[in-house]
Amino acid sequence: MRAHAFRLTPGTDLRAELERLTQTHALRAACILSGVGSLTRAHLRMPGAAGDPEAFATFVEPLEIVSLAGTLGPDGLHVHISLARADGACVGGHLAPGCIVNTTAELVIGELPDTEFRRRLDPATGYAELSVQPRRSEGDPPAS
Amino acid sequence: MRAHAFRLTPGTDLRAELERLTQTHALRAACILSGVGSLTRAHLRMPGAAGDPEAFATFVEPLEIVSLAGTLGPDGLHVHISLARADGACVGGHLAPGCIVNTTAELVIGELPDTEFRRRLDPATGYAELSVQPRRSEGDPPAS
Amino acid sequence: MRAHAFRLTPGTDLRAELERLTQTHALRAACILSGVGSLTRAHLRMPGAAGDPEAFATFVEPLEIVSLAGTLGPDGLHVHISLARADGACVGGHLAPGCIVNTTAELVIGELPDTEFRRRLDPATGYAELSVQPRRSEGDPPAS
Repeated sequence: MRAHAFRLTPGTDLRAELERLTQTHALRAACILSGVGSLTRAHLRMPGAAGDPEAFATFVEPLEIVSLAGTLGPDGLHVHISLARADGACVGGHLAPGCIVNTTAELVIGELPDTEFRRRLDPATGYAELSVQPRRSEGDPPAS
Repeated sequence: MRAHAFRLTPGTDLRAELERLTQTHALRAACILSGVGSLTRAHLRMPGAAGDPEAFATFVEPLEIVSLAGTLGPDGLHVHISLARADGACVGGHLAPGCIVNTTAELVIGELPDTEFRRRLDPATGYAELSVQPRRSEGDPPAS
Repeated sequence: MRAHAFRLTPGTDLRAELERLTQTHALRAACILSGVGSLTRAHLRMPGAAGDPEAFATFVEPLEIVSLAGTLGPDGLHVHISLARADGACVGGHLAPGCIVNTTAELVIGELPDTEFRRRLDPATGYAELSVQPRRSEGDPPAS
């Protein structure tokens, strides 16, 4: 596993920056190893039962990032976050666009060298779910 | 460190699957690097003071996995989890059997190549606590 | 990435021990990969808006460590934690001195071999923020 570390600066959109880093570093299978920092605003998708419409919540207040986890690859990312509020109580959910860095976010991302993360629609869930594949080298013919 | 990635499917018991993966991949010292996904049901052991009887809590509702951490080895696993509820509020504790995957769980597990995790009863705590040891090669005589 | 694992024993101050491990193992760029365990007491810095005086909260009760994340290096550490209370509800924040291990804390720390974490005052935030640098070898002249 190869690790990459980054500091994000105030005003950065956390999800957009993870997407940008995935592209810039051509990450074909990676995960978040550690993430700390703070947000001024969070926009999260909430858990729901199958068939429910998607629900989102927005928190506009100083928040500490207390956990950040998930997978990154060429077909997209799947990242969850939890955040401490001013009284310490934690809120969390699925990282959506609109989570804005307050003072900093320190990220360490781990790259799996022999693996490729793809996402394919799983009819059982309705989502593009993670498929863990051996990494094809540059010269291989495209998958059919 | 060598990394392994897995996608768990709906209905899987998260703790039982972590135990099965530890056995199948003969993990002698590993930890959870990143975990995201969702549960339909959580069964967690709650924190308690020394000498208290063990207490458990069950949550039967859509939950997002926002953190998953801990160690895996031949003498068992020690994993804690936190989960976001429908309003974003987080609950957590010690992962017990009975945590059931909703749509998916994406896990990245890191294996420490030169290390062996054993667990031995610590009279100070009453639990089988982690002992970090150098990994013995296959041909070594058994430890006394 | 090279991984180090540790078990902390009852009564240990978690932040002081992370600082001691960073010095003892001469960690020049590391992050927490996984952390589980329990505390008898937590002392956390709470999120705040820019310019607010720093606020702290103390929890003296059995707590489970459900997430622990952050970076370690020669200029200091930046670690956030979240904890489950007796009813499962989670609280979290910036790890301050005074978080005391109950029965155990199991830590896996990952070291980035080619990287050096430094911290320099960022006038935009007022904090010594992470700077990710290539690691200088022992024989290099000091940075100006």
